[in-house]
Amino acid sequence: MSAPVVRFLTGITTTGTPHLGNYVGAIRPAVQASRRSGTENFYFLADYHALIKCDEPARIQRSTLEIAACWLAAGLDPEQVFFYRQSDIPEITELTWLLTCVTGKGVLNRAHAYKAQVDKNAAAGVDPDADVTMGLFMYPVLMGADILMFKAHKVPVGRDQIQHLEMARDMAQSFNHLYGEHLVLPEAQVDDAVALLPGLDGRKMSKSYDNVIGLFAPREHVRKQIFSIVTDSRAPGEPKDTEGSALFQIYQAFASPEETQKLRQLYAAGISWADAKQMLFERIDAEIAPMRAKYEHLVAHPEELERILQAGAAKARARATPLMRELREAVGLRNLASIAGAAKKDKAKASLPSFKQYRESDGLFYFKFVDAQGRLLLQSRGFASPKEAGQSIAAMKSALALPQDAQTPEGVPPEQVIAALKDLTRSENQSI
Amino acid sequence: MSAPVVRFLTGITTTGTPHLGNYVGAIRPAVQASRRSGTENFYFLADYHALIKCDEPARIQRSTLEIAACWLAAGLDPEQVFFYRQSDIPEITELTWLLTCVTGKGVLNRAHAYKAQVDKNAAAGVDPDADVTMGLFMYPVLMGADILMFKAHKVPVGRDQIQHLEMARDMAQSFNHLYGEHLVLPEAQVDDAVALLPGLDGRKMSKSYDNVIGLFAPREHVRKQIFSIVTDSRAPGEPKDTEGSALFQIYQAFASPEETQKLRQLYAAGISWADAKQMLFERIDAEIAPMRAKYEHLVAHPEELERILQAGAAKARARATPLMRELREAVGLRNLASIAGAAKKDKAKASLPSFKQYRESDGLFYFKFVDAQGRLLLQSRGFASPKEAGQSIAAMKSALALPQDAQTPEGVPPEQVIAALKDLTRSENQSI
Repeated sequence: MSAPVVRFLTGITTTGTPHLGNYVGAIRPAVQASRRSGTENFYFLADYHALIKCDEPARIQRSTLEIAACWLAAGLDPEQVFFYRQSDIPEITELTWLLTCVTGKGVLNRAHAYKAQVDKNAAAGVDPDADVTMGLFMYPVLMGADILMFKAHKVPVGRDQIQHLEMARDMAQSFNHLYGEHLVLPEAQVDDAVALLPGLDGRKMSKSYDNVIGLFAPREHVRKQIFSIVTDSRAPGEPKDTEGSALFQIYQAFASPEETQKLRQLYAAGISWADAKQMLFERIDAEIAPMRAKYEHLVAHPEELERILQAGAAKARARATPLMRELREAVGLRNLASIAGAAKKDKAKASLPSFKQYRESDGLFYFKFVDAQGRLLLQSRGFASPKEAGQSIAAMKSALALPQDAQTPEGVPPEQVIAALKDLTRSENQSI
Repeated sequence: MSAPVVRFLTGITTTGTPHLGNYVGAIRPAVQASRRSGTENFYFLADYHALIKCDEPARIQRSTLEIAACWLAAGLDPEQVFFYRQSDIPEITELTWLLTCVTGKGVLNRAHAYKAQVDKNAAAGVDPDADVTMGLFMYPVLMGADILMFKAHKVPVGRDQIQHLEMARDMAQSFNHLYGEHLVLPEAQVDDAVALLPGLDGRKMSKSYDNVIGLFAPREHVRKQIFSIVTDSRAPGEPKDTEGSALFQIYQAFASPEETQKLRQLYAAGISWADAKQMLFERIDAEIAPMRAKYEHLVAHPEELERILQAGAAKARARATPLMRELREAVGLRNLASIAGAAKKDKAKASLPSFKQYRESDGLFYFKFVDAQGRLLLQSRGFASPKEAGQSIAAMKSALALPQDAQTPEGVPPEQVIAALKDLTRSENQSI
């Protein structure tokens, strides 16, 4: 007996060009994880999400190209995994709408990213929703659709994304509660051990600090960047500290324990910074160089990448389309031809009890409740206006009870009237 | 030369079964309007909208069937107009997402339907967003997509919907401002002369008052309903008042001026209520009976209706698909193969100016700004930390100006440095 497959799903934001920090922290571990047996792995280029914060079309296109090329060059095998562009799966926006209808607004009011913007606006003394687009506000619903569309069990995320995963679980739960068990409840998988690479200046490597080393920048360019890593001023021959040395930490992220131990010894022995940087460059280059040819080939042949993404979309849609069909059926977006016994229901309706309203010669407004055969079940008192008579009927229907002052005719027990009332309201709620 | 075509669009909510009030107030005038020359007319069954307030699948399906059958029986010609089910046009939810990203949250905060619920919650002393689903909050965005998808010029609406039309205009304007002129700005067309039919009790005919006369209910059922119209107690032979007589008003909505005048005379002459009701029944039946056969046929043959709706969807998608393709291209959801000169851009990048950060033997952190050939453009002062150096670079890039204390090398005018700064930031913003 084989163990059940566990599905993992990872979204890749299509802004920016990956740098060494992304490679060590995200791409390399994800590519390794994609090879686990007993798993299915979904990786998608989140370009619908990119629209939330980027209104430069050329940038989105270019970024999608470079990021897709990076992941493939880093070893992701599109035959082994599901690798697709979000916007090639139109079912995702349709599912977004279905989830929109089962998500309470209060839930999104509490989303961290939205609240952060509200706090910022409060500090600036402007309207709480200044500069908040509905894209930002709806982000968690789109993310819910990304995850639920492929019945993902586990979503590897940083701590800041745990809340979004909880929201996706809530959406799935609400949907299943209303329409039956169709969606899988996903779980966040937080890995605190994810390597954070220092940048050129020793701070975390990040585009916003302008301290990154390019992943597939030209070789000579990478070399120059590595040589600009900030070091202290110890001269060649002086022993050097590995503690707090960005250069050492970056080396460690690429080297084996033995290689790392060797560099530690060289530090103690007084290796020159120039030699240490050359060692680091060579070590990184040894890992990246074999991938660079593939990266450059793909970026120079976007039509090949496009074919790979189209094939990935077809593979992903083979999952999305049947689920979406199931969900449409569940909520009532159905082929009309599937209505069974439509005519029969209409006949059933004609054999239901009903209310009759009328005005008596005393000028007051009355109603009667009669069964399907027209036999009197209840006679109302007189009301001053038709509105009051109507309200009394509505109250009976919603409470499924007789008015306090009601008198049923001889031979008609109140239980019979209430049963008739139930028949009527059940029918009205079910078949219009 | 022919005049330009004007496109009208009308959404039909798929809840409930149409009654005589809907027929007189909405269906009959819309069917008449659909025959105007020089117009294109779009009528859609708004089932994505129905999901906002109805979580009963069978009810949505049944309602879609009955309402579609009503409109066709009432004379709407699917060959002449665009008659489709909203959920058959998946482009609508995709456009909804694009519009979501260009809609400010503040706009939706002001929507009447949402504010009404917030006020209700305030009165009940509960959380302002209690019972508010995102479906209710996002309603205007979905409606915007309905309208903009088909480049509608005019949308006939009641006064309560004018605000939603204004929002759809805003969305189109924001989109066009960011991405170029792709969407048509729609206009509300308010007709205050729309006939409001009184119901059995004299109030406006409405399902919520339980005072409706069925449109295609069985003939004998309609007759019974008409005979239960509330009248005063004047006996046969007594002159009767047309003023305030629901019976008279309903008759007027179906009769010619001559027929109406004749009933007025009969009222004055003391026609009995029973005779007047019989006249009304016959007059209504004369208009409805020819349609009833078609209605009953369609409801009994949902597969025929389904074929008509599928054909309508194909016709509507022939408009939606090309526009959606155009909009995806506009926002940057593009075929990667269309990237021109990708390789060229990469080469251009290598010939850009750049910043170099380093640490001097004084223990301070410095940076240099050099041109593509490595020639010095600017030498920084020393900073206590790499963070401060990085902040100074970021400030130069965002202000496109030199620090106050900056000294450019001999032979390098500050303008040249600023020009290089612009080259660098422009390139970073454009190509990642």
